[in-house]
Amino acid sequence: MTSRRELANAIRALSMDAVQKANSGHPGAPMGMADIAEVLWNDFMTHNPTNPKWSNRDRFVLSNGHGSMLIYSLLHLTGYDLPIDELKRFRQLHSKTPGHPEYGYAPGIETTTGPLGQGITNAVGMAIAEKALAAQFNRDGHTVVDHNTYVFLGDGCLMEGISHEACSLAGTLGLGKLVAFWDDNGISIDGHVDGWFTDNTPQRFEAYGWHVIADVDGHDSDALYKAIELAKAVTGKPTLICCKTTIGFGSPNKSGSHACHGAPLGDAEINLTKAALGWDYGAFEVPEHVYAGWDAKEKGAHAEQAWNEKFQAYQAEYPELAAEYQRRMAGDLPTDWAEGADAFVSAVNAEAKTTATRLSSLASIEGYAKLLPEIFGGSADLGCSNMTEWTGYKPMRADKPNANYVNYGVREFGMSAIMNGVALHGGLVPFGATFLMFSEYARNAVRMASLMKIRSIFVYTHDSIGLGEDGPTHQPVEQTATLRLIPGMHVWRTCDAVETAVAWRAAIERKDGPSVLVFSRQNLPHVPRTDAQISAITRGGYILVDSEGTPDAIIIATGSEVELAVKAAEQLKASGKNIRVVSMPSTNIFDAQDAAYKESVLPSSVTQRVAVEAGVTDGWWKYVGTNGRIVGIDHFGESAPAGQLFKEFGFTVENVVLNVEAVL
Amino acid sequence: MTSRRELANAIRALSMDAVQKANSGHPGAPMGMADIAEVLWNDFMTHNPTNPKWSNRDRFVLSNGHGSMLIYSLLHLTGYDLPIDELKRFRQLHSKTPGHPEYGYAPGIETTTGPLGQGITNAVGMAIAEKALAAQFNRDGHTVVDHNTYVFLGDGCLMEGISHEACSLAGTLGLGKLVAFWDDNGISIDGHVDGWFTDNTPQRFEAYGWHVIADVDGHDSDALYKAIELAKAVTGKPTLICCKTTIGFGSPNKSGSHACHGAPLGDAEINLTKAALGWDYGAFEVPEHVYAGWDAKEKGAHAEQAWNEKFQAYQAEYPELAAEYQRRMAGDLPTDWAEGADAFVSAVNAEAKTTATRLSSLASIEGYAKLLPEIFGGSADLGCSNMTEWTGYKPMRADKPNANYVNYGVREFGMSAIMNGVALHGGLVPFGATFLMFSEYARNAVRMASLMKIRSIFVYTHDSIGLGEDGPTHQPVEQTATLRLIPGMHVWRTCDAVETAVAWRAAIERKDGPSVLVFSRQNLPHVPRTDAQISAITRGGYILVDSEGTPDAIIIATGSEVELAVKAAEQLKASGKNIRVVSMPSTNIFDAQDAAYKESVLPSSVTQRVAVEAGVTDGWWKYVGTNGRIVGIDHFGESAPAGQLFKEFGFTVENVVLNVEAVL
Repeated sequence: MTSRRELANAIRALSMDAVQKANSGHPGAPMGMADIAEVLWNDFMTHNPTNPKWSNRDRFVLSNGHGSMLIYSLLHLTGYDLPIDELKRFRQLHSKTPGHPEYGYAPGIETTTGPLGQGITNAVGMAIAEKALAAQFNRDGHTVVDHNTYVFLGDGCLMEGISHEACSLAGTLGLGKLVAFWDDNGISIDGHVDGWFTDNTPQRFEAYGWHVIADVDGHDSDALYKAIELAKAVTGKPTLICCKTTIGFGSPNKSGSHACHGAPLGDAEINLTKAALGWDYGAFEVPEHVYAGWDAKEKGAHAEQAWNEKFQAYQAEYPELAAEYQRRMAGDLPTDWAEGADAFVSAVNAEAKTTATRLSSLASIEGYAKLLPEIFGGSADLGCSNMTEWTGYKPMRADKPNANYVNYGVREFGMSAIMNGVALHGGLVPFGATFLMFSEYARNAVRMASLMKIRSIFVYTHDSIGLGEDGPTHQPVEQTATLRLIPGMHVWRTCDAVETAVAWRAAIERKDGPSVLVFSRQNLPHVPRTDAQISAITRGGYILVDSEGTPDAIIIATGSEVELAVKAAEQLKASGKNIRVVSMPSTNIFDAQDAAYKESVLPSSVTQRVAVEAGVTDGWWKYVGTNGRIVGIDHFGESAPAGQLFKEFGFTVENVVLNVEAVL
Repeated sequence: MTSRRELANAIRALSMDAVQKANSGHPGAPMGMADIAEVLWNDFMTHNPTNPKWSNRDRFVLSNGHGSMLIYSLLHLTGYDLPIDELKRFRQLHSKTPGHPEYGYAPGIETTTGPLGQGITNAVGMAIAEKALAAQFNRDGHTVVDHNTYVFLGDGCLMEGISHEACSLAGTLGLGKLVAFWDDNGISIDGHVDGWFTDNTPQRFEAYGWHVIADVDGHDSDALYKAIELAKAVTGKPTLICCKTTIGFGSPNKSGSHACHGAPLGDAEINLTKAALGWDYGAFEVPEHVYAGWDAKEKGAHAEQAWNEKFQAYQAEYPELAAEYQRRMAGDLPTDWAEGADAFVSAVNAEAKTTATRLSSLASIEGYAKLLPEIFGGSADLGCSNMTEWTGYKPMRADKPNANYVNYGVREFGMSAIMNGVALHGGLVPFGATFLMFSEYARNAVRMASLMKIRSIFVYTHDSIGLGEDGPTHQPVEQTATLRLIPGMHVWRTCDAVETAVAWRAAIERKDGPSVLVFSRQNLPHVPRTDAQISAITRGGYILVDSEGTPDAIIIATGSEVELAVKAAEQLKASGKNIRVVSMPSTNIFDAQDAAYKESVLPSSVTQRVAVEAGVTDGWWKYVGTNGRIVGIDHFGESAPAGQLFKEFGFTVENVVLNVEAVL
């Protein structure tokens, strides 16, 4: 039988070879964690390489994503559709093996990692999803949702603040099926970590309420086996297994030093290392007996088959639940969704309510949650400000897994990356809320949702100086504009309850990407619309009030400033001007419309244009052109009642009128 | 003698009254922490209300900044220039008492707080500055730098990830003069924290190597007094004093509940509370004996006088050091700065080197650090990638305080808010580096530097798809654009060593605001310039290559794309076109130039314009206008060698030429 060490050495060899061929990459971590990976994947991981999307598979996350060759090696060796040629194209254009593991590129990559600390946080989200879904779907004698989430992480992840947010919450929620392996190699890019990282990490995680297994030799397979068994036996707490490892294990001259962290070892050192490891094979060569020792296809097929049988028994007893489980894990909306959503939007329109869009948002959650049991909400300690606590909300607690909500605490970044993990797990549609300003704390997780093309819904209230007295630290000025710049993001800033209901619906229906929903603190009036106009909201920008014939000028506005635009147009009409008002709740979506539609809304012949938004102006030049004007705010706000601030900073009907007159 | 409780009740009464009058604000925290504040400020804080800028004062930071009435009360009561009328104008336009404490508004506010977790992190920065300056300036028998940094924080700060980054590093660096008071009231906005925050906080901080004083009754002045004495006695570790408090202490019906966290108590409850506290005075009324009990003007003047005498003795023995200390604490540059900087820029120009701008940045640090002993650098574990480790760099360690650098570890947000604390302390000019992508982890601290108008210098390398194989998680696309949108920020993206040297110089000379310096991973060629052109770099945008007579078209470019623009212009010239190339290293600074200068660079008559930048395009419409074109990238990158990516995504001379031809 092939020894465990020899199996692990296949990872080491492939990692060295691929990094060398690419002439860039990180061999140290895969070489250091190879023995841990070997024990976990060969003896514990339940997965099926021929069906990477099997819903009840164990999830594996490489939080130290720079060690990507570790997971590529594992996927290749265990039988995923990742041939050796892809490993040879490591870090090359259009390969399945980019520098960091990218969700959607190679099969079996559960999440994109690289930005440190977010992988462990995604994993917490996956474990939360599993816990909630198990409570929602399992029945006595039927445990159809029952899997572990395993995560590898390094010192970098542990230094990042987000690891605190995620791991603290994981402890509080008692996520017993989460098992994390700390690659305690004492090295980060700047060198030996003792100059900048001296945490007693086991003690830290005990303080979070984790089950901590300290001082495990990360190169002793028996010790690792026992640790994982122990981790699985403790079901009420997440487990941290602290693995002492040697970075670049096996390299005679570079192991244990940051020299092997992020650079190829070089051919000579690779040869020395292979000799030291007793790995007598050429580059990218893996002997058959080693492949045989790793092959998980048959075991995986059996595991899935056994689960399929369990699921059939469940299906026989609970056909509706089983169908619901399948629907939700496929990410499909209910069959009655469109009808119900249509009815809801109509009802909101009929109600014609003047209200804050954060309250319209709550009404939307109420309306849609009735149709959509997979809604999984939350707020970073601002539930009553963000208006996220709908009547049916059930917050998760360690002993209350049957939940559709998380009190995330004051943890915006953690919340956002957890939401991404929930979305990646499947079966739930996560939303999470904070003040728009504090989207900045979570910025990179929001970007990661877009990069991964997943359905995370970010709800941001208190969207401008309209927040009032809390002052400039809390008043967004540039945040909506910066969020719009994330490639692939759909940012919505809505002007009333109807646009809010449509935006929420669009976010829910967007299966292949995230949305940002930006809402006001203050009341906004209902705007009357035709059915055609209501439909047009989904195009991101549309004619809200039209002129007779070709307009003399067009006012483009979003959110709370639409009211100003409409009133300014009325006033200008009274003095004989023909003014069109375009509401532009989502510039991103408007930009993606066909040219004819865009031309119909913003005819190129009409260059007299004014944009109005209580935010920075730069992005609006694209729409108003060289002749246009922008009523915006390019400086920080002040602490004062909202009404005064709008006046102080020129967000008045009068000032909009003056600007339109200036372009006429 | 006025009782301690009565003194503390003055804070409670003023806080209730001011929040009530403003009809918004947070009375709970000031009422809960009043007793702690009373002991600390009356018995320990060394400060002089009549000279809030005395350089050796103790620093006090209210990290839970929503409790702003606590600090406004303290400043008013102890004798700062903050009259009662300002407290009556709490949260009103142009008052000194905005909703959250804003640096530069009321005297005695050491930093702007509100965004949770950043206050404690600023405080860590202040303590680092004190430690470094003490080592640099104190001499045997002369301790001119010797003060404490005190910080109040709440559960929200402790939940935020940045508290982990900051407190972990504070423990590692052994910041013995940092004393933090945890307001352990068990309440956050969503209610009792036990549903979402169950950390064993004392254990957590012990894991960081802090001195932890657990279980102190935050309403027992004797216990608090002893705790602070103990904290001061432990000089090798920061101290956390865990204070059990009752939020809204004194309010019969709202104390101990989140009902008093963020809303006025109401007149009736205020009356009941005042009765319960035995505070028999009207709104905003503080009796003379209570004022007398708080007045710190005389004690403060004596303290400063005693220090002045110490300083005079120091000055007598070390006149040069004393002068240097005074210069540095004033934030002034050395008298030979301008001359030295001129010489350095000239030398860089003469060298005419082709090199990566991250390496030019290192050369700039080398050059300027020789002139500027207050340079205080660092990197978030990327020193050898960001190129921040100049020959004279001395990283701080717990036992090596004589430092000019911090190995921040993988803590981008912590680093940035620590830098802000260092800048606020004075005496040092902080810079800190990471990959441009991970500016996103630190986003809100970067904004806070701009809001506070302080000299933090953020160095971001690996600035585009030019980063290459690490792939889309690490390749900035929208980051430069979003940083430019922060009001008041100066963002630089330089095209060669000369622009880099000028940008660094501008950042150092910018006393009243932060700068972002964006640098390439890859080599960029030197561009020849006249002296006038070198001077013009400081205007943010300038004519780098001019046409003869009125240009047929203008190409505007930044950073690595300037090379493409220059080559495209040459090629177009060969085919008879008159092309101007504008290098625009800082759009922010260019925008602030006078109209005549801007017109001279970008004449409005020339509407044939093309912008070239390896980033999102939206911001460039402002410069190229409706007729213009932009060569940019509005989607995520890929993992591949940099050269291939530039080709793949159209960053080639050929494509720039095509785009110019299209506008001609």
